[in-house]
Amino acid sequence: MAEPKNDLPAVIVLGNPSFLKLYGEQFSSKFKLLKPWESSLPLNQFITTHAQSVPAMLCSGGTRVTPSLLRQFPSLRVIVTTSAGLNHMDLDECRRLGISVANAGTVFSEDVADFAVGLLIDVLRKVSAADRFVKNGLWPLHRDYPLASKVGGRKVGIVGLGSIGLEVAKRLEPFGCVISYQSRKKKPVPYPFYPDVHELATKCDVLVICCALTDQTRHLINKEVLLALGKQGIVINIARGAGLDVFENEPNVPEELLSLDNVVLSPHVAFLAEDSFQDLYELMSGNLEAFFFNKPLLTPVLDD
Amino acid sequence: MAEPKNDLPAVIVLGNPSFLKLYGEQFSSKFKLLKPWESSLPLNQFITTHAQSVPAMLCSGGTRVTPSLLRQFPSLRVIVTTSAGLNHMDLDECRRLGISVANAGTVFSEDVADFAVGLLIDVLRKVSAADRFVKNGLWPLHRDYPLASKVGGRKVGIVGLGSIGLEVAKRLEPFGCVISYQSRKKKPVPYPFYPDVHELATKCDVLVICCALTDQTRHLINKEVLLALGKQGIVINIARGAGLDVFENEPNVPEELLSLDNVVLSPHVAFLAEDSFQDLYELMSGNLEAFFFNKPLLTPVLDD
Repeated sequence: MAEPKNDLPAVIVLGNPSFLKLYGEQFSSKFKLLKPWESSLPLNQFITTHAQSVPAMLCSGGTRVTPSLLRQFPSLRVIVTTSAGLNHMDLDECRRLGISVANAGTVFSEDVADFAVGLLIDVLRKVSAADRFVKNGLWPLHRDYPLASKVGGRKVGIVGLGSIGLEVAKRLEPFGCVISYQSRKKKPVPYPFYPDVHELATKCDVLVICCALTDQTRHLINKEVLLALGKQGIVINIARGAGLDVFENEPNVPEELLSLDNVVLSPHVAFLAEDSFQDLYELMSGNLEAFFFNKPLLTPVLDD
Repeated sequence: MAEPKNDLPAVIVLGNPSFLKLYGEQFSSKFKLLKPWESSLPLNQFITTHAQSVPAMLCSGGTRVTPSLLRQFPSLRVIVTTSAGLNHMDLDECRRLGISVANAGTVFSEDVADFAVGLLIDVLRKVSAADRFVKNGLWPLHRDYPLASKVGGRKVGIVGLGSIGLEVAKRLEPFGCVISYQSRKKKPVPYPFYPDVHELATKCDVLVICCALTDQTRHLINKEVLLALGKQGIVINIARGAGLDVFENEPNVPEELLSLDNVVLSPHVAFLAEDSFQDLYELMSGNLEAFFFNKPLLTPVLDD
């Protein structure tokens, strides 16, 4: 049996990030991972045992990083989160405490964009509903399947034109979709820009929500925006807190959505493609190595 | 009530094409449509009543146009089919009898390509399965959803690089898929060409079947090809006669497929988008008008 490598830098791991199932061993060869879920101690006691000295934390998007959690880690200097979103962390508090933060950067952007396009084709062309129709044995009984809508020519508004939004736009262009976008500021792209989501909705048939969840974007897609989008409108949400791949109180999904044939739901997996875990492993490991070698983080979140 | 317009050219309609539900009235303003399903006569008697004189036939992909059917229509000079596929018609017999044939041409190519991409994203990223997982209330119970596979980097072989195959390739490029193709002859495209499907399968993770069903392509994707594609391989069939949107004995689907979570089935609807029916109406009507004005058919099938 290998000696415990006590000379490796210590990293406390909260939230049991799923990429560790595939890359845990490689990760452990570089860092001394402190994993509460493998300890016999209750979480709080585990934290108390290690909190005084541990300089680095690895966490997932489900880990709530609050001021009271941070206060327990006086030596903490860096937090690396496996998520692209940062809404689970109190960034102001991190900044105040001088803790650097790095996230998943754009590792998942292509996968999330792929999934957004998959959901859009699914809703328009009724792919999941068709699958249900055939698997439930209804085809021989009803023959005529309800007509679906064409993807080409659809006016698609992208809410938040960051790396995911751009990948969505790039993929939808050859389908003949007409792209426009809303964003905090105008970008150097050939698509019409609307600073206001409501105005974007009036011009579009489809909204693809690609913005980060922040205090500014929470409940951005409100009743007025949905009314502006119209009755035939489609919302694709691969962001957070409203519609389809992502919900406000995961894993609880509003009952009303469950039985709707024109709604396609997925359990927050837009980012989840096995092949991307290696990239995530490399990025998480690279961020921690950078920290321990006093180099700049690869995907820093705060303006250090 | 309007007078029956007996001066309009007569067209017998077989198979009750579904676009007539939306464009039947416009069609009827141009042609005297003889519709067996609106007659009190049994089909055979209806045909006998009109067959001697009718010069034109409109049919759908489900209408079997056999030599014995054709023999009943001595005046028939043109058949216009709403399908792109021609496997329901005896083209040799049409040619012998001097009957021109027109089909749906490329009216559906974009829709079919959209659907093929939707099916591919669905199978790789488990969209329908994810929808089922959430709708069946499994998310709060199991939390972890099985990992899906990335779309980008996937080696996609297109079998039959006609108008549909080209549209599929165009759409998959921005996803980062690596395209190659099999076709009867090499085309002026930047993708690697393999004259043999088996060889294509050895080079690819995914086969997208876009070829027409002919005597040459029937059962083209045989056991050897599937073995060459490998255990992780994916077949997307929006053509005819094997896999997913299309089956050999529609609407009967092999029992074994119905319960498979990694198979997405749809009831031969890849071409079905309501917005395309206007294009189909215009093409069907244009073909018949061309015929009655002695002009070349718009989408001729035989080398007249």
